[in-house]
Amino acid sequence: MSETPATAAEEPTRTIAFVAYPGITVLDLVGPLQVCSALSYLAPGFRTVVVGERIEPMATDTPLSVVPSHTFEEVPDPYAVLVPGGLVPTLAALADQRLLGRLRQLAEGAELVGSVCTGSLLLAAAGLLEGRRATTHWWYRDLLTRFGATPVAERWVADGRFITAAGVSAGIDMALQLVAQVAGEPLAREVQLIIEYDPQPPFGAIDWAGTDIASYAPIAQGALRQALVDHPELYARLTDEK
Amino acid sequence: MSETPATAAEEPTRTIAFVAYPGITVLDLVGPLQVCSALSYLAPGFRTVVVGERIEPMATDTPLSVVPSHTFEEVPDPYAVLVPGGLVPTLAALADQRLLGRLRQLAEGAELVGSVCTGSLLLAAAGLLEGRRATTHWWYRDLLTRFGATPVAERWVADGRFITAAGVSAGIDMALQLVAQVAGEPLAREVQLIIEYDPQPPFGAIDWAGTDIASYAPIAQGALRQALVDHPELYARLTDEK
Repeated sequence: MSETPATAAEEPTRTIAFVAYPGITVLDLVGPLQVCSALSYLAPGFRTVVVGERIEPMATDTPLSVVPSHTFEEVPDPYAVLVPGGLVPTLAALADQRLLGRLRQLAEGAELVGSVCTGSLLLAAAGLLEGRRATTHWWYRDLLTRFGATPVAERWVADGRFITAAGVSAGIDMALQLVAQVAGEPLAREVQLIIEYDPQPPFGAIDWAGTDIASYAPIAQGALRQALVDHPELYARLTDEK
Repeated sequence: MSETPATAAEEPTRTIAFVAYPGITVLDLVGPLQVCSALSYLAPGFRTVVVGERIEPMATDTPLSVVPSHTFEEVPDPYAVLVPGGLVPTLAALADQRLLGRLRQLAEGAELVGSVCTGSLLLAAAGLLEGRRATTHWWYRDLLTRFGATPVAERWVADGRFITAAGVSAGIDMALQLVAQVAGEPLAREVQLIIEYDPQPPFGAIDWAGTDIASYAPIAQGALRQALVDHPELYARLTDEK
């Protein structure tokens, strides 16, 4: 490992806060958390925390439950904020004013605000992505327009202090980019080496041209309908459906 | 999403058990867990569980704690077992006869036994990789020889019913391969699409030729020494050091 940069000890610790809420897609959280925690190991000027309403187990979209390290109150002013996504629980959270308020508070003073997958829809619903370029899971990319954001089909999209990643595993790529931005490319490469991120998908990259994207729309729409069953006005606004 | 294969409903559910123990590298667990849980969503003939000594929060190598879904006793006979790795806590577990016994029990009737990162060292210490080709995190690849396994520098290595992955993020690639093996390549590709695994590391693949691998040996050795400070005989056997 490289030596800690001399500046790290002299500067205040920069806190990278990962937001946890019930039902998240757990890899959305853990991919970038592992990347940024490796950074904090190499460069003590950074630390990672996982913030939630309570320090209690919460369900994910797998059988694993996760426990935040801090409450929202304990981390009032992080340097960076990262919001994971998910399927039905995240879409339901588009109507969760309490969580959206938390996100606005966390984002207010943060120098960097990021998301993975449908986490960007929460940032958008919180009013944070208006007029900005952003991305999300490919199922829901067009939904960003409903919140005044401009959808972009890229692995991650940086616009000002906002950086949004595509679906699930894209959080790893985005987090490495974020590490390079805040700590320099040599440290980002060292993190990549430590987590041995040298991807070799057994069947190669995704064949987007050969994917019938439209065929997934009914499933994506169905999940949104299920999530917002108690919020018909929001559902109508997001879909033009009655 | 594709339709559930007709056979799924007719066959008994196949349980893929992920082992959790304190101090794991959380992405080692969550990468393949997300992949296999997506499979269980697409093909109800599969289910994932996370097994541990107790259904209680346990620390990881990040600020996130995780909670298993089942105890070891509750999952006596899984179809597949996957063991995550970690740094000092995993190396310390090389001397944890209780955990090694659990791994032997789980592996006994399993059709597939896998590992991520230094999880393969635990399988090896449990006597399960003798005479087999295997891999692990690049820091510790040579250590496999001490347990009678043959180290291989590949992203993942299949030998009989054992499949071992390289460091941390390699578990995602390995799990997609495993899904293809048990459920067919079309389903594995569909999982890849859902988790949008279309990796674009911002600085490209790891430049192994430009990496001074030997320079990391003292750090790797130091972590092993720290982990086995109470087990000098095992440390000596693994390192030839007194």
